[in-house]
Amino acid sequence: MRISEIETPALLLDRGRLERNVGRMRARLEALGVPLRPHVKTAKSAEAVRLAVAGQPGGITVSTLKEAEYFLDRGFTDILYAVGIAPSKLGHVASLRERGAEVTIVLDSAEMAEAAAERAAALGACFPVLIEVDTDGGRAGVRADDARLVEVGRRLHGSAGTRLRGVMTHAGRSYECRSPAELRAMAEQERAGAVAAAEALRSAGLPAPVVSVGSTPTALFAERLDGVTEVRAGVYMFMDRVMAALGVCAEADIAVSVLATVIGHRPDLGYLLIDAGGLALSKDRGSAGDYGRLADPVSAAPLGLAVASVNQEHGLVPAAAADFERLPIGASVRIHPNHACMTAAAHEFYLLVEDGEVVERWQRCNFW
Amino acid sequence: MRISEIETPALLLDRGRLERNVGRMRARLEALGVPLRPHVKTAKSAEAVRLAVAGQPGGITVSTLKEAEYFLDRGFTDILYAVGIAPSKLGHVASLRERGAEVTIVLDSAEMAEAAAERAAALGACFPVLIEVDTDGGRAGVRADDARLVEVGRRLHGSAGTRLRGVMTHAGRSYECRSPAELRAMAEQERAGAVAAAEALRSAGLPAPVVSVGSTPTALFAERLDGVTEVRAGVYMFMDRVMAALGVCAEADIAVSVLATVIGHRPDLGYLLIDAGGLALSKDRGSAGDYGRLADPVSAAPLGLAVASVNQEHGLVPAAAADFERLPIGASVRIHPNHACMTAAAHEFYLLVEDGEVVERWQRCNFW
Repeated sequence: MRISEIETPALLLDRGRLERNVGRMRARLEALGVPLRPHVKTAKSAEAVRLAVAGQPGGITVSTLKEAEYFLDRGFTDILYAVGIAPSKLGHVASLRERGAEVTIVLDSAEMAEAAAERAAALGACFPVLIEVDTDGGRAGVRADDARLVEVGRRLHGSAGTRLRGVMTHAGRSYECRSPAELRAMAEQERAGAVAAAEALRSAGLPAPVVSVGSTPTALFAERLDGVTEVRAGVYMFMDRVMAALGVCAEADIAVSVLATVIGHRPDLGYLLIDAGGLALSKDRGSAGDYGRLADPVSAAPLGLAVASVNQEHGLVPAAAADFERLPIGASVRIHPNHACMTAAAHEFYLLVEDGEVVERWQRCNFW
Repeated sequence: MRISEIETPALLLDRGRLERNVGRMRARLEALGVPLRPHVKTAKSAEAVRLAVAGQPGGITVSTLKEAEYFLDRGFTDILYAVGIAPSKLGHVASLRERGAEVTIVLDSAEMAEAAAERAAALGACFPVLIEVDTDGGRAGVRADDARLVEVGRRLHGSAGTRLRGVMTHAGRSYECRSPAELRAMAEQERAGAVAAAEALRSAGLPAPVVSVGSTPTALFAERLDGVTEVRAGVYMFMDRVMAALGVCAEADIAVSVLATVIGHRPDLGYLLIDAGGLALSKDRGSAGDYGRLADPVSAAPLGLAVASVNQEHGLVPAAAADFERLPIGASVRIHPNHACMTAAAHEFYLLVEDGEVVERWQRCNFW
């Protein structure tokens, strides 16, 4: 199928760019000597993740138990569920473990450690656990120098229902960095914080074989990863405009885009209309303040236009006289997204494109 | 199943509120003497829309051809596809018509009228068409006093492949109104503009039996609908915080919410964490600037807290000491959304709740 024959809106995935992005991360982590545990939350596709794990020893990271189900059904068994666990999800985790998945959970409080031990006893299960460590003050976790870290570790280690495996952290604040120097410093802060937490556990006589860190920016900007046993990253497979604005990739590395059609011209109001709106693009305005930038449907070359506002199925693109000429009603355009995770999640499948042709269709594992 | 047993995040639909909202719109339009053609873009569920059409003579409005497929498979045949058509979609429309769907398309330009006629000839099809009219300068359409309206009408009427059925308009700017008086004025502007467009066609000897208008705010605030033959509205079934902020409903009318679990406490940083983030809530910040307001999981009574920021699977809720006490780790909360269409679209199905119990599960028809 040619791109011009696709019913829009549709999610395109450029195979060449995907392969380059995957290769770049693999080469970087090989150079640093640390295995990659890819985060599947962006791609949510077994085909994409198989590309990412090629030649890697480790498992995967998931953001939902639905992803764990989907990837287990496709042969992935070593799974880290990297969102703080809730008591109501432990039965599901136990059933995944009975089906052969080595699912590790994450928590950061004594209350949750207690609840996990209790549920484990009721379910006849034992849950491997990483303690989430806060290395940037941005979201979840316990700080490496907080006495509660060792307290949580003791509870986990002392219970038959939980097995302390170590620590994990995610420097989400790396998305707020403004220069390569800041990114390098944030990567070192993430590494040092995680290693310090593992050391604190070990000094208390507790096991901490796993030291898991990661985000796409810190994984690509880390200069050393001493003491780290695995790196997690997800958006690097597709990249997006937020990553490009951070300097983590070039705009020409963005592998995912939404194909749309020009469905109206309003020269009287200075815009043209496309059939991709808030649903197809997501309402993530990223750092640019728009909803995505237009590109040629085949070459993906930028057109110098952006989606300024959206309704559910409409996008409004400010346009001048010459734009109405080059983009007649019925013309196709690609929209490069601000935030690949959010935009891809609006779609059921990817159309893999190569040289302007659709060569494959990959299903996504959406929802919970 | 009780609400406390649901794996989160999950989309709840309060049956009592849904029925009240549906009844309110029906009563209002019965009083005005105009049939309702519900827009299914918000609910995307046959069960919800069957409630909405009970006792109504007309068909439905869809925002995607996927919705048209889904509703045709469930017995709905009179379908208006209310997004400006693109040439690449006409084959799909023709196949739906062959399967028994009376699909009407919408367009607003001579170019698209020409393209539709050409494709109709190639497909051996004939497409009923409404001309989209711009009554508020907000998006698509041709103005009632623009000479191109009659030009488009003539092309449609003069082609064997298209059948001119009349006009449609949507006063999306009603979402920007600030008082009941402004809403009433916008409803009258929408009505008058659509009727004027139909009159312009008729004065030129062209048929315009259909005059279709609508948005939830204008449908509920219209004082008269003389000359209008049908009203479209969709979000009224669920309502949301944008509608409440407009004065179109009360917060206690919002039928849809996301159930989430408290997965972390950060008293040191002044927030608690829930397992509903940008994916489960959408990134629509509505008019409030947050990502949704917290409510009791069973009673739906407001808790006075809001989701201030989101990552993919995390929501951060600014909280004080008393909030950590009343919302311990593992507690459930409901989040009332800013924009029901966007939030519901993030989920695969609704859990219908009645008196704190899940009584049914309704599938949604997502994607394209």
